[in-house]
Amino acid sequence: MLYRRLGKSGLQLSALSFGAWVTFGKQVGRTQARELLALAHDRGVNFFDNAEIYNHGVAEQVMGDVLADLRFPRDSYCVSSKVFFGAVDKPLPTQRGLSRKHVMEACTQALQRLRVDYLDLYFCHRADPDTPIEETVAAMDTLIRQGKVLYWGTSEWPVEAIHEAHRIARENHLYAPVMEQPEYNLLHRERVEVEYAPLYEAYGMGTTIWSPLASGLLSGKYNDGVPADSRLTQPGYEWLRESALSKERIGKVRALQPVADELGTSLAQLAIAWCLLNPHVSTVMLGASRLEQLEHNLGALDVLPKLDEAMCQRIAQAVA
Amino acid sequence: MLYRRLGKSGLQLSALSFGAWVTFGKQVGRTQARELLALAHDRGVNFFDNAEIYNHGVAEQVMGDVLADLRFPRDSYCVSSKVFFGAVDKPLPTQRGLSRKHVMEACTQALQRLRVDYLDLYFCHRADPDTPIEETVAAMDTLIRQGKVLYWGTSEWPVEAIHEAHRIARENHLYAPVMEQPEYNLLHRERVEVEYAPLYEAYGMGTTIWSPLASGLLSGKYNDGVPADSRLTQPGYEWLRESALSKERIGKVRALQPVADELGTSLAQLAIAWCLLNPHVSTVMLGASRLEQLEHNLGALDVLPKLDEAMCQRIAQAVA
Amino acid sequence: MLYRRLGKSGLQLSALSFGAWVTFGKQVGRTQARELLALAHDRGVNFFDNAEIYNHGVAEQVMGDVLADLRFPRDSYCVSSKVFFGAVDKPLPTQRGLSRKHVMEACTQALQRLRVDYLDLYFCHRADPDTPIEETVAAMDTLIRQGKVLYWGTSEWPVEAIHEAHRIARENHLYAPVMEQPEYNLLHRERVEVEYAPLYEAYGMGTTIWSPLASGLLSGKYNDGVPADSRLTQPGYEWLRESALSKERIGKVRALQPVADELGTSLAQLAIAWCLLNPHVSTVMLGASRLEQLEHNLGALDVLPKLDEAMCQRIAQAVA
Amino acid sequence: MLYRRLGKSGLQLSALSFGAWVTFGKQVGRTQARELLALAHDRGVNFFDNAEIYNHGVAEQVMGDVLADLRFPRDSYCVSSKVFFGAVDKPLPTQRGLSRKHVMEACTQALQRLRVDYLDLYFCHRADPDTPIEETVAAMDTLIRQGKVLYWGTSEWPVEAIHEAHRIARENHLYAPVMEQPEYNLLHRERVEVEYAPLYEAYGMGTTIWSPLASGLLSGKYNDGVPADSRLTQPGYEWLRESALSKERIGKVRALQPVADELGTSLAQLAIAWCLLNPHVSTVMLGASRLEQLEHNLGALDVLPKLDEAMCQRIAQAVA
Repeated sequence: MLYRRLGKSGLQLSALSFGAWVTFGKQVGRTQARELLALAHDRGVNFFDNAEIYNHGVAEQVMGDVLADLRFPRDSYCVSSKVFFGAVDKPLPTQRGLSRKHVMEACTQALQRLRVDYLDLYFCHRADPDTPIEETVAAMDTLIRQGKVLYWGTSEWPVEAIHEAHRIARENHLYAPVMEQPEYNLLHRERVEVEYAPLYEAYGMGTTIWSPLASGLLSGKYNDGVPADSRLTQPGYEWLRESALSKERIGKVRALQPVADELGTSLAQLAIAWCLLNPHVSTVMLGASRLEQLEHNLGALDVLPKLDEAMCQRIAQAVA
Repeated sequence: MLYRRLGKSGLQLSALSFGAWVTFGKQVGRTQARELLALAHDRGVNFFDNAEIYNHGVAEQVMGDVLADLRFPRDSYCVSSKVFFGAVDKPLPTQRGLSRKHVMEACTQALQRLRVDYLDLYFCHRADPDTPIEETVAAMDTLIRQGKVLYWGTSEWPVEAIHEAHRIARENHLYAPVMEQPEYNLLHRERVEVEYAPLYEAYGMGTTIWSPLASGLLSGKYNDGVPADSRLTQPGYEWLRESALSKERIGKVRALQPVADELGTSLAQLAIAWCLLNPHVSTVMLGASRLEQLEHNLGALDVLPKLDEAMCQRIAQAVA
Repeated sequence: MLYRRLGKSGLQLSALSFGAWVTFGKQVGRTQARELLALAHDRGVNFFDNAEIYNHGVAEQVMGDVLADLRFPRDSYCVSSKVFFGAVDKPLPTQRGLSRKHVMEACTQALQRLRVDYLDLYFCHRADPDTPIEETVAAMDTLIRQGKVLYWGTSEWPVEAIHEAHRIARENHLYAPVMEQPEYNLLHRERVEVEYAPLYEAYGMGTTIWSPLASGLLSGKYNDGVPADSRLTQPGYEWLRESALSKERIGKVRALQPVADELGTSLAQLAIAWCLLNPHVSTVMLGASRLEQLEHNLGALDVLPKLDEAMCQRIAQAVA
Repeated sequence: MLYRRLGKSGLQLSALSFGAWVTFGKQVGRTQARELLALAHDRGVNFFDNAEIYNHGVAEQVMGDVLADLRFPRDSYCVSSKVFFGAVDKPLPTQRGLSRKHVMEACTQALQRLRVDYLDLYFCHRADPDTPIEETVAAMDTLIRQGKVLYWGTSEWPVEAIHEAHRIARENHLYAPVMEQPEYNLLHRERVEVEYAPLYEAYGMGTTIWSPLASGLLSGKYNDGVPADSRLTQPGYEWLRESALSKERIGKVRALQPVADELGTSLAQLAIAWCLLNPHVSTVMLGASRLEQLEHNLGALDVLPKLDEAMCQRIAQAVA
């Protein structure tokens, strides 16, 4: 496994990590989850991502049970949660957002579901226009001082809000956000490459990026329509199916195929490896639900050395 | 239910909330309290107010037992206590006021009586001229960092003392008061509308107002004298009876009746709804002791949309 | 009982308080200690003073057992300890002084012996030239934030060291000392009245004064030699006997007798009441070992109103 | 025993202390360790040094078991650990270094192995170029405020990194490092005497020096080759054997023999005593594995008074 520092921080994450997202507790039951985590940990993956909203807390429960069962040494991996959307189906106003009340309560609940004493990473899953940033920064600071969280970060926050969080932290001697969790892939580059550019230099923030395959589109599996066993066919994913499968996007994916062929790799491995070319990507989160899929995607690390400058230009042209 | 942010904070309280005040443990026993809290919670009320002095701790014990019995999710409601007057009948000098000793001990005791791990809101029930404000602010700050309190505030403090608390908090990186709990109703407007006006702008403070019906006077039930089952006939309430029932005040209440009639509502609902017209009122605390009364008062939310500008002027004239 | 604020702090101590000093665990066993504390508490005494060095921890053990047995409400009294001399007979270098190690460990041990969760007051029993003041202030600050101490202070520190402690506290946002525990009586006035004068104004510090009777001398009981049952006849008190019983000092005490006679009181009550004339004395600690003695000394409060200006001048002349 | 303050701090360490280093759990089993610690404590040694890396945690386990068995009063000794190299054989990236994650987890693990509630001293075993110093200082600060560590320090850090740690601590009101643990002996003087010179004056740092005998070389036992029972013959110590036993170094040791003879002492005692001549050495750590050896080395204290200026010059010439 390749390891990278989470920005300028001292935490070294595996370049490829594992996200439970919507799969744990839905397509992926405890038995399968156990095999996926065991394989990932065995290959050196040391970051397991989660969130209160993922299957309304069930993804965290499944991961917690599996982690307890597998008995990995606690210092051999990092586990995260994210607060914002709430863990219940129709959250009350006190059960969501970034108020001190919800940040504290959501952390307590995540620790219980994940069956750990502290979260290595804790994310604000979105910016909350209805809570002043100082309230959230102060709540995160309290959790870190209490030992319940080691590093806190943001996910998909507007860059101005992140600047503001750092300003507040600096002026009040509070812990500042260390990482962002944005979407990043060949079809979605703007935020990570342009909007967030000042954050890497100014604060040394790292990123734990999600959707390296653009919801699977970059694996090429939708090039000929949506297969029956795809996540996109599940009820509740209509929005994803629609936005993901535009003709323009599928055209770009098809244009990548010759590059993958030439490298002797798959579209998926190519797309994942490409993310790692960006030095500001600390880790690429894989969301596999099947063992072979995880195994295959972890192989992206072998593609990385083949991506020289010429190859990168060809990739850029394909998705331009 | 309608929800409002507690000032600029991220905590969203139900626009109508429930105060135990003197009723719990006196007119209202555990059985009735259980029904009241269950109804309130069912209707979306998420703030249950209490204080160490309310029936000398018994109001908190009753509420704590009922909350434990009802098993509402802890993140679905907020509970408060207030420190100043002491929980025993004739408090010793160490058993009252806002010294570090009493603030810390009163919190520990309130947590035990209310059977919770933390207070969502903790109020200084009055300003204490015999304790420097910095001592009280520092004690509240310690409780918040220890996780025993989420937000602290004041109740009926002179505005200068609140300014002073904010100055101390800012200069020493301590948690500042987030809310005030003042009396506010059609017959008592000065403090909330004039004295406290600078606080909303400068610090974004919210208010959790008490006595929206002016001790019941605005329900009109004393328009023809004090009924036998009224709280005002209970021993110990002579002071309230006297101040509440002046001829001038009852005259104003009678002048409101035609407005209520025209709106097809009751005086009580009108008076409660009127409080919510003030955007600086975060929540109106209802103090019902009977189910029908609570149910009726919660109906004030339906009156709110009917209070247009013309109607507000007529109301203002009636109580001028 | 009369109560006074501990300096400008919000803590109100009884004007007369009770010190275990060397008596608890030596002349005074658990049975007698129980009666003394019960009487004191019954009369409104709310401060019980102790120290690790008093009979090498035994005074704290006796007081702790008696407090546990008497079941006074925890908020009805204050208990103190003092750190510096160590609790064992020949302390090792790590077992005494004001290093972070000893301050923290001594506190833990005092809490165990006194059987309480926190000390209301915690004193640095002397200044420690071998520890930088910032280390001690920081350790006290940690204890207060952890909830193990409510207020910290000094005892018999040179005034410059107290100034330094306040400077350090202010610059680093640490808790500053709130009180001093100096010797003060008719024969020992300099430190409290002159040296410490700037502290009351600048920081609002209070004092918990010891030896109001100058080791018993001011009770007049040594006017005709040392009685057989006196503490001064006990082995180990030779130094006290010598310094206490100079001819000059005994002459002053004798000169006070006519004043006491005229007031119809005893020398002891006169001397204790005199201490309370100083507004910077927060509480006068009584060190009685017998019930009648404690009862008698508590009577000093009745003498206080009789000490008008003329009487004070006569007292001053007697001890000049 | 002679005691010295750890720099300007209030902690007084015995001038000679005991280091477990590689011996505990390897040459030295629990029975022998028990005898060594008992002898050391009996002679006034109050500092037992350890580290997570020493025999991969086993040295701490052995010391913890022995300390629990011997029941020394907790305030009669200091125990340390060091974080950096990790406690497992081939540490993962999260299991070593000075990230917040590893600093916190390593402390928790050391407390468990050593069976104590807090570490008196906690060292960063090396500087970590892959972690920003502010992250490490903040983590140490958290541990001190949580009561899990009393004093933190560095070991073999470049002087610039120590300056940086102090700057960060001062600007953010965090606890600063109090001590360094460098190698220091007659053959290795530069760092302690020159590089670190500014640290003693500027910050009052102390040093707990290791290898006073230069891995045994200064005992003279390698003057005629490596004996069979020497630590240097054990597998894994080839590097040490090579660097330690250069002809130049052995020549210097031989040149010291006449000085030792004249003083009527051994080379070992002379070399140990010489270290204590440096006032910035707070304690010299002895690493004995046999009782007689420890006993002999503790005798260095008797040599100290004999080292007058003339003698020191002769020593300096011998190793020049």
